[in-house]
Amino acid sequence: MMDTKLSSFDNSKTDKKTLDKTREKAKEMSAKQREISVAEFFEKNRHLLGFDNKRKALLTTVKEAVDNSLDACEEAGIQPEISIELIDMGKDRFRIIIEDNGPGIVKKQIPKIFAKLLYGSKFHKLAQSRGQQGIGISASVMYGQLTTGRPAKIISKIHPDDPAHYYELKINTKTNEPEILRDEEKQWADKDHGTKIELDLEGSFQKGSQSVDEYLKETAIINPHVTIIYTNPKAEQFIFPRAVNEVPRIPKEIKPHPYGVELGMLIKMMQWTESKTMKQFLKSDFSRVSDKSANEILENAKILPKTKPGSVTREMAEALIKGIQETKLMMPPTDCISPIGEDNLIKGLKKEINAEFYTSVTRPPAVYRGNPFVVECAIAYGGNQPGDKPIKVMRFANKVPLLFQQGACAVTESITKTSWRSYGLNQSANNLPVGPATVLVHIASVWVPFTSEAKEALAHYPEIIKEMKLAIQEAGRKLAKYTAKKRRVKDELKKRSYIEKYIPHLAGALKELLELSKEEEGVIEEELKGLLEKQRGKLEELKFDPTKNEEYDEEFARIGKEEPENEEEDGMEGDQK
Amino acid sequence: MMDTKLSSFDNSKTDKKTLDKTREKAKEMSAKQREISVAEFFEKNRHLLGFDNKRKALLTTVKEAVDNSLDACEEAGIQPEISIELIDMGKDRFRIIIEDNGPGIVKKQIPKIFAKLLYGSKFHKLAQSRGQQGIGISASVMYGQLTTGRPAKIISKIHPDDPAHYYELKINTKTNEPEILRDEEKQWADKDHGTKIELDLEGSFQKGSQSVDEYLKETAIINPHVTIIYTNPKAEQFIFPRAVNEVPRIPKEIKPHPYGVELGMLIKMMQWTESKTMKQFLKSDFSRVSDKSANEILENAKILPKTKPGSVTREMAEALIKGIQETKLMMPPTDCISPIGEDNLIKGLKKEINAEFYTSVTRPPAVYRGNPFVVECAIAYGGNQPGDKPIKVMRFANKVPLLFQQGACAVTESITKTSWRSYGLNQSANNLPVGPATVLVHIASVWVPFTSEAKEALAHYPEIIKEMKLAIQEAGRKLAKYTAKKRRVKDELKKRSYIEKYIPHLAGALKELLELSKEEEGVIEEELKGLLEKQRGKLEELKFDPTKNEEYDEEFARIGKEEPENEEEDGMEGDQK
Repeated sequence: MMDTKLSSFDNSKTDKKTLDKTREKAKEMSAKQREISVAEFFEKNRHLLGFDNKRKALLTTVKEAVDNSLDACEEAGIQPEISIELIDMGKDRFRIIIEDNGPGIVKKQIPKIFAKLLYGSKFHKLAQSRGQQGIGISASVMYGQLTTGRPAKIISKIHPDDPAHYYELKINTKTNEPEILRDEEKQWADKDHGTKIELDLEGSFQKGSQSVDEYLKETAIINPHVTIIYTNPKAEQFIFPRAVNEVPRIPKEIKPHPYGVELGMLIKMMQWTESKTMKQFLKSDFSRVSDKSANEILENAKILPKTKPGSVTREMAEALIKGIQETKLMMPPTDCISPIGEDNLIKGLKKEINAEFYTSVTRPPAVYRGNPFVVECAIAYGGNQPGDKPIKVMRFANKVPLLFQQGACAVTESITKTSWRSYGLNQSANNLPVGPATVLVHIASVWVPFTSEAKEALAHYPEIIKEMKLAIQEAGRKLAKYTAKKRRVKDELKKRSYIEKYIPHLAGALKELLELSKEEEGVIEEELKGLLEKQRGKLEELKFDPTKNEEYDEEFARIGKEEPENEEEDGMEGDQK
Repeated sequence: MMDTKLSSFDNSKTDKKTLDKTREKAKEMSAKQREISVAEFFEKNRHLLGFDNKRKALLTTVKEAVDNSLDACEEAGIQPEISIELIDMGKDRFRIIIEDNGPGIVKKQIPKIFAKLLYGSKFHKLAQSRGQQGIGISASVMYGQLTTGRPAKIISKIHPDDPAHYYELKINTKTNEPEILRDEEKQWADKDHGTKIELDLEGSFQKGSQSVDEYLKETAIINPHVTIIYTNPKAEQFIFPRAVNEVPRIPKEIKPHPYGVELGMLIKMMQWTESKTMKQFLKSDFSRVSDKSANEILENAKILPKTKPGSVTREMAEALIKGIQETKLMMPPTDCISPIGEDNLIKGLKKEINAEFYTSVTRPPAVYRGNPFVVECAIAYGGNQPGDKPIKVMRFANKVPLLFQQGACAVTESITKTSWRSYGLNQSANNLPVGPATVLVHIASVWVPFTSEAKEALAHYPEIIKEMKLAIQEAGRKLAKYTAKKRRVKDELKKRSYIEKYIPHLAGALKELLELSKEEEGVIEEELKGLLEKQRGKLEELKFDPTKNEEYDEEFARIGKEEPENEEEDGMEGDQK
């Protein structure tokens, strides 16, 4: 096989005519090269954005709109109230109407926010938010126009004294710019501020574990400060009223941490900074760089503090990276991260699952690629959960439920790579454990890495998987205590019932030996039982009491558990897992 | 839970001061909205492009460059000769040098092709090619500059009489435009035409099933017309010389088929067409629309043939879609698809696997969303393959090997949803079958839908999964014939050995009964054996002869089978599957 005689690239004998033809071909090929607009790209690759099939299209659209509303409300310090209405228009067409009480959108931003891909305020800042890419809702507008030819209708208002602005919008996919079909001032009576979007699209409505119903329920569970009013196409109305009355904390923005910065990024930052000196640059463009540590970094890198950032060469930048690594810095601030919290996790699980045992863990903040993040895990065990099936997994990222691509998610990876036998569940190598349990995992971060633009599963960053495993193990050990105790009680009960079985025989034998009366025999039997109890200790009752969990709401819990009517009616298979 | 008393959106009581503050907030939020360049987007989400970790970064870069070279050669009708050199620069840095004998690139296109994302000639046309998005190689340039700060160096030449053009390029990620650091004419002696790229990047080299070695080997297997000269960082040189001497067929471009067009796309096409009338538009912008069928479509849609495409309303477009569906049209042309072919598939498998039995299937063309595609499947069974492990799966799309994300791929879905027990392999529900077999699946199409921009796995389109299952079943049935025969032979051998065991006893008994001599006993024994053979028929030998497969090359087959030195040294776990 190793043919070393082969004279590489010997095309010197090619005749002139062939060579001339090839040159013509090169020129011809050149003429066909052109730019691809990001809208065209995603129009053709719409499955990357969660528009693989009609059912998912409906869910993705609701999700993107609701995520935006929640983000906007929280950024403005408003308690969110969101109404979602789905109307079946027949022939696989649906009208989606979503209205919020957010701060509203300033007139000139409306077209771009809804009808331009890669536009937004969340991409360039490091702050925990549901949206982060500036693709979501405009992708829904694009999908709607592709499948129904209709524009999106948007109305938004920022103050009772200001008029509301109404737009009908499409995306010009060749340029990725908004096409404004209508632009009017409108009355929006009784509305102080907020935004409403109305979209027609090709979709299909299904109940079940990957339905809009389930998505909104899980959203309500994990965001107890939100009120959701939802009418599905079957005209069933669900109202999830807020459970806590606090105004959500406004998410804090942070600057990148020096430890996470890469060479190319550093070079770019120095090119674009407004700082005049390197020292100032380090102090103001990064988090956790004090006056002292800035000096230390520059000393380690052998760069003068007054050097202009724009004049730093590639070689100096390499030295700077080395200098940063040699300098001890505080970890990134973590008050920018807003976890769900151990109590709320348990409260949420209790609403959904009537179990015997609940536990939850919120890990301390950790860092990946300079981004702080927090992992949380909660487990509900036993009760009315089936014991012969794989556990149920609930995944959340920045308080958004993830319903698709479970197999591709870092959460699943972390669960399957944890050894569950020691926590009292069955497990065959690298599979989900089997047993009556639900495991919930949440990651909160200023930047959540997803495996695709559709934000359905978390990428397998080792730092994140490590933290997830630690959270799962911590919750698992608490579970292990319970399951071990349960096993002990079960064993003990078995032993006792075994001994108890012999007590009457023993009493009977004593009666005969000592010629006791029937009453005396009874007394002895009772005493023997008492002795057993005393010897082996009082047994704690570990029976499941279905009425004990006051949070549990049967009607609520049933949402999303319906069998979809005809599962594979349309679109992609294989994502049901 | 159904709290119907909740007065929705009642914020009328909010005080003026809060409302004014909210308006200020809305304005403040508006000021932060801005465009996100596609380069910034992918720089931050580089795992979407196959740059999850250092090991994959190296492979992705080689893959993108080689795919481009092969596409360019084939489009220009040149027999491809590609040289790949990987140099270990220490400290996780690698230099990648890839040179081809392609047609070369016209000067003015060089910067954009290598240093602008979403730029190229393949996205807008329907033709089978390896690249299709215009992201690949420029993403590698971006990753290189991000991790090493160094520009890409490119030299290209289109004719012996023309000078070669040399560029040093970076990407300005804020604008997604090329930054030209150097632009020179250079001598490139002994080179008629071709392109060479040199890139430095952070990477890590590993042998094994997801290595550059394995990728290039599989590329050579499936592209027998290509010569590959490869030097890995361990300074091992592999030469895969071409096995067939044909100039590859130039891929044909087709037009979209009316059956696959969606409403929004149709509206856009009518907006942008150069055709003056609807009839002309249908005939010239689509494939398979004859004069007669154009009339029929328009009649069904109640649109006059002379209508200007630009004047067609949304409602008319809806009628047109209906009209198309009511008209019988020929399926899309399929001469644009170039499958590998049943013989080449078997030849390829034979090189790699020393098996007992080989079979392959090339399905007739099918259509999804208007795009023609062909699925092929080949199976190698038995021989030196382990019988107690899941089968090996080899996946290819447009002749490119897919090494990652097997679990997320439509190929895997199709294999696991096929019932393999009837073909003689073990299988537990919805898992890969277990047995001594390799299953290869290839899809060729004018547009291959991938699950991510990294083009690692195929999206789960039902039409594609259906075709894959049919191909697998067809090959499976051929396999079943062989495994059934093998089982029969095995059973028969067992029976015969059972009977044979009694022949000496029978002969001995006869000897005693009839008082025969020792010689006579021997004769009887022989005759009884002859009788057995005659009665039960001559048995075909089905033993594995490892020397029978002349294509098999042990040294070649060993590539990619090495254990990686420290599997999880860096980067993402979970993708090893």
